[in-house]
Amino acid sequence: MRVDVLTLFPEMFTGVFGTSILGKAQDKGIVSLNPVNFRDYAGNKHGTVDDTPYGGGGGMVLKPDPIFRAVEDLLSGKPANAPAPRIILMCPQGESFTQRKAEELAEEEHLIFICGHYEGYDERIREHLVTDELSVGDYVLTGGELPAMVVVDSVVRLLPGVLGNETSAVTDSFSTGLLEYPHYTRPVEFRGWKVPDILLSGHHANVADWRRKEALRRTWLRRPDLLEYAELTPKDQKWLDEIRAEHEE
Amino acid sequence: MRVDVLTLFPEMFTGVFGTSILGKAQDKGIVSLNPVNFRDYAGNKHGTVDDTPYGGGGGMVLKPDPIFRAVEDLLSGKPANAPAPRIILMCPQGESFTQRKAEELAEEEHLIFICGHYEGYDERIREHLVTDELSVGDYVLTGGELPAMVVVDSVVRLLPGVLGNETSAVTDSFSTGLLEYPHYTRPVEFRGWKVPDILLSGHHANVADWRRKEALRRTWLRRPDLLEYAELTPKDQKWLDEIRAEHEE
Repeated sequence: MRVDVLTLFPEMFTGVFGTSILGKAQDKGIVSLNPVNFRDYAGNKHGTVDDTPYGGGGGMVLKPDPIFRAVEDLLSGKPANAPAPRIILMCPQGESFTQRKAEELAEEEHLIFICGHYEGYDERIREHLVTDELSVGDYVLTGGELPAMVVVDSVVRLLPGVLGNETSAVTDSFSTGLLEYPHYTRPVEFRGWKVPDILLSGHHANVADWRRKEALRRTWLRRPDLLEYAELTPKDQKWLDEIRAEHEE
Repeated sequence: MRVDVLTLFPEMFTGVFGTSILGKAQDKGIVSLNPVNFRDYAGNKHGTVDDTPYGGGGGMVLKPDPIFRAVEDLLSGKPANAPAPRIILMCPQGESFTQRKAEELAEEEHLIFICGHYEGYDERIREHLVTDELSVGDYVLTGGELPAMVVVDSVVRLLPGVLGNETSAVTDSFSTGLLEYPHYTRPVEFRGWKVPDILLSGHHANVADWRRKEALRRTWLRRPDLLEYAELTPKDQKWLDEIRAEHEE
């Protein structure tokens, strides 16, 4: 997979793209991650990429020309029959990013991210260039750079060969649609706080039951909305009844 | 404000913490951002900070001792009457992070973030050390590092003196509770696509009306859930009726 990120702050990406899973995925040749400074496509000696908005008001707006030209330059070396890339605008107005969207993007060969910073985007970028607009959450950030890193991390870790065994297990625990059950490791007693006896019992079926019930409990307490979509067995439903009763006492 | 980030990958933070708004906020002395490698608190010569889970199963679990000791070390130099810091665990099981939470955290003097990476957390960290658990969205990431950067960016930009005039206007546009209206800048015609005439009219009241209606339209089309909480005037309601009619045609 090839990932290009259009940004005015390419230096923000060095540490994140070079470290851990993303760094290893690049070393293995599974993905190439390329921050591109679209100021290089400004087409004027001052490197101006934004301007004041038509109709007045505060703030600056990113001009269409530098971004169109940067994208076209990235595509210029590709064969005519290559599949079209996904061109993704990171913005608060976008579709809410989810794990399902990450899985969809992981099927692509080429992703291009466009990251604004302070500024708004000229609407013609939205209408005539991008294929997707994504938002990572309902909070205000300085630019699209951190959201792009979030999307890239979530997508690249789904590519075949990227995750080793030590990490895939963690991913699997999400596929249940529930929040994770509590984890414990050594020491068995830490500052007077003990690991639950059942986890030390060696009785695998009881451990599995305890974990499932605690995953249900945590989900019910913290994110009851997830229970609507989770696949629940009759046993799960019985446990949920027990949990509700335990918390009413 | 002081922000400490416990992580096994402090090098991930260099580019993000050193650039743009976060870099400038540090230069101005408004915030200090300190990645701390909690492997330095492992207490064994191999630097081991995780171990296998009690009860079996895959994955590794972060041990409580190094994280407790790292936090205690960060607090050791503080006066006895200093306000207690917020100790924030980044995890998918956490409360969904929102702008309201960012505003709440911006009132604090000291934030400590705990970032796991692949591993789960020993439950005793949750129960006896942290004050908040936060999730930035329903997607799977490799670690808590990117989520911590997201929270730090959203919080620090709210601190007094951090944002200049060029950026505060962008923030203001969120306070309406609606998605932003479309922006346009030069050129007035780009590749045959023109700026809407009304934005060139110089008629401020008409421009303001158009922008409000287009903000309503975009919100209605993309994020109708936001309309439930937005403050809408009778005029807004009339425009929403018009918008619904326009899209039914």
